[in-house]
Amino acid sequence: MSKLNCPPLSDITILDLTHVLAGPYCSMILSDLGAKVIKVEQPDIGDDTRHFPPFRDGHSAYFATINRDKQSIALNLKDDTDRAVFERLLAQVDVVMENYRPGVMERLGYGWDTLSARHPHLIYGAVSGFGHTGPDALKPAYDMVAQARGGVMSITGEKNREPVRVGASVGDIVAGMFLGHGLLAALYQREKTGKGQKVDVAMLDSQLAIIEHAIAITGETGVPPEPSGARHPSIAPFETYHTADGLMVIACGNDVLFRKLCQVIGKPHWATRPEFENNLARCENVQLLRRRIETVTLGHPRAHWLEILTAEGIPCTPIQNVAEAMQDPQILARNMVKHLPAPDGGKPFVAAGNPIKMSSVDDTRTPGAAPLLDGDRDAILDWLAEQER
Amino acid sequence: MSKLNCPPLSDITILDLTHVLAGPYCSMILSDLGAKVIKVEQPDIGDDTRHFPPFRDGHSAYFATINRDKQSIALNLKDDTDRAVFERLLAQVDVVMENYRPGVMERLGYGWDTLSARHPHLIYGAVSGFGHTGPDALKPAYDMVAQARGGVMSITGEKNREPVRVGASVGDIVAGMFLGHGLLAALYQREKTGKGQKVDVAMLDSQLAIIEHAIAITGETGVPPEPSGARHPSIAPFETYHTADGLMVIACGNDVLFRKLCQVIGKPHWATRPEFENNLARCENVQLLRRRIETVTLGHPRAHWLEILTAEGIPCTPIQNVAEAMQDPQILARNMVKHLPAPDGGKPFVAAGNPIKMSSVDDTRTPGAAPLLDGDRDAILDWLAEQER
Repeated sequence: MSKLNCPPLSDITILDLTHVLAGPYCSMILSDLGAKVIKVEQPDIGDDTRHFPPFRDGHSAYFATINRDKQSIALNLKDDTDRAVFERLLAQVDVVMENYRPGVMERLGYGWDTLSARHPHLIYGAVSGFGHTGPDALKPAYDMVAQARGGVMSITGEKNREPVRVGASVGDIVAGMFLGHGLLAALYQREKTGKGQKVDVAMLDSQLAIIEHAIAITGETGVPPEPSGARHPSIAPFETYHTADGLMVIACGNDVLFRKLCQVIGKPHWATRPEFENNLARCENVQLLRRRIETVTLGHPRAHWLEILTAEGIPCTPIQNVAEAMQDPQILARNMVKHLPAPDGGKPFVAAGNPIKMSSVDDTRTPGAAPLLDGDRDAILDWLAEQER
Repeated sequence: MSKLNCPPLSDITILDLTHVLAGPYCSMILSDLGAKVIKVEQPDIGDDTRHFPPFRDGHSAYFATINRDKQSIALNLKDDTDRAVFERLLAQVDVVMENYRPGVMERLGYGWDTLSARHPHLIYGAVSGFGHTGPDALKPAYDMVAQARGGVMSITGEKNREPVRVGASVGDIVAGMFLGHGLLAALYQREKTGKGQKVDVAMLDSQLAIIEHAIAITGETGVPPEPSGARHPSIAPFETYHTADGLMVIACGNDVLFRKLCQVIGKPHWATRPEFENNLARCENVQLLRRRIETVTLGHPRAHWLEILTAEGIPCTPIQNVAEAMQDPQILARNMVKHLPAPDGGKPFVAAGNPIKMSSVDDTRTPGAAPLLDGDRDAILDWLAEQER
């Protein structure tokens, strides 16, 4: 049974000057929620990620997944003819978003003050490495610069080894998601005021915003936390454990779950021992606790433990690689793996689905292909003429 | 000069049944954007995180930061008197949000179908481990279970070592942020339709949604990526490098930046060598490239390299621990470190600020304290009576 599809942003058009990841990820989310996204790209070159591997038949799979369902027009914002088209577009859209370094839009004559005076309804979103204010506003950044400077790398990895990058590009993605919140809140507010506003999100700020636990600890103790490998820094048992045939995660967030775990693994008396009696004691004795648990878990294969722990409601899981996650029955049941049409009609590109399941959005829908560079020029100009009529 | 403060969600009230992190992080963002958040807690016990370290004078610093500016009322949803209060609240709020396992709200008589029939304007937000549909909907989860099952752990850490957890709780936080998008989009849509809707977000889905790069690679090659330590898996140079006195990150996302880097470190001829001439070649020879770069960077201290690379616009940074990040002049200039009042008037708790900088929100404002358990009962009942008048 197909669900009615009337997505929340179906009356919204976004003029998207962003490239690489933070901005395009944000406009991907808004597109998944129904917005029409017009991607403005540099002539000939286009979005940098068009040149990121892996490629198939000259098309970047990376570009294809993030830019699904968007339209593309190539415009040189230093050329008068193209500027005229861009300005006509500005007059018709709800949101303009960019991820240039601060000042670039001003030099082009499209700074927020100018645009806002001309188009009071326009919402302006900017995502940059360090934001539009502060002493380092003009410095360049990439995902890993934000992860490293913002403290996330310092708490990721193994103690006494060099810090590692978070495998997911959270420096970009989380910034794109904060921008998404800002743009949606601005759209809501515009319904009341009729006026747009500027949203300014920095990748660096966004990293600090996701380490709430480390900040609370540092604020109280003055001592920044170290990386804690595969365990949660202040809950136990809450980490990876070896079984007869591989690692698994067991996560007991409270005493009730720990008591259940002790029962299930045949060691009910552990739960009342002073060294394990509550979370604080377990954290203090976390290495002893791990060794004790592993003396048991090493005795059977992982499948055995997953089955009996799950039956008792104890949170646990294998550590899946990305291929395994993409075939996970729960992931598939949630429409989280999408096969996007290739621009040339070839084998589809695989991408993650939309994790925001809403009554108004038909989640079974397959998004449209990512655009060829300048591939929607005619359609966009037609739409523009229609809007201007 | 203080800015006008008219935050976008100042007319919105959220009835928040969530606890621990994913849900409360979402309502924290919405509260930072102006929403009134009424936190409904279990009598006597309250939110689990009230019992998470570090503590000061009996108050959890962790709870204090995530629940700033919210109000608290303790209600037992199995008690008739408390249910009556809860039902009066439901009739007056815009959003109700919960992070129980699927089915719990239905058993309480507050499932989405029931609530929607009674209060068509109500928006319902749910965040859970695996979502409200699919074969594993009822399984329990915590942050690390989502990180492990969703593939994020498999790409984080060092090759040939055991996987590590992402130091930030991205299993919870990213799910909370997708819920935030859904709720904001639902608020926008309600302005057009007058009707609420349900938003259902799973932690597991949310993990898959942030590994776009790994999915593109796996989809094309069939081979899931391994963890790549401190480097980006498909850009070079883009990792940590040793200097005379410590590690730093250098990130060159394109050929222009690489050529600049070669100039600045006195090796302009590297840029034209076949093994380094473009990103693909550099990725294939990434270990050679690292050794070459380090023969140079090891010759001077980090401060030297930061200065001369920054002067040429090459993205680079030290790897800051959380204490260093919290004192970073750029972070401070962006109001990203807030000192929240303690509930007993003692020394403030330190928390990250709001990374969403909007024209309508006064970013210099200090949020209010987190509530004591049931600490706002009278104020909430007074507000309720006023709404009902």
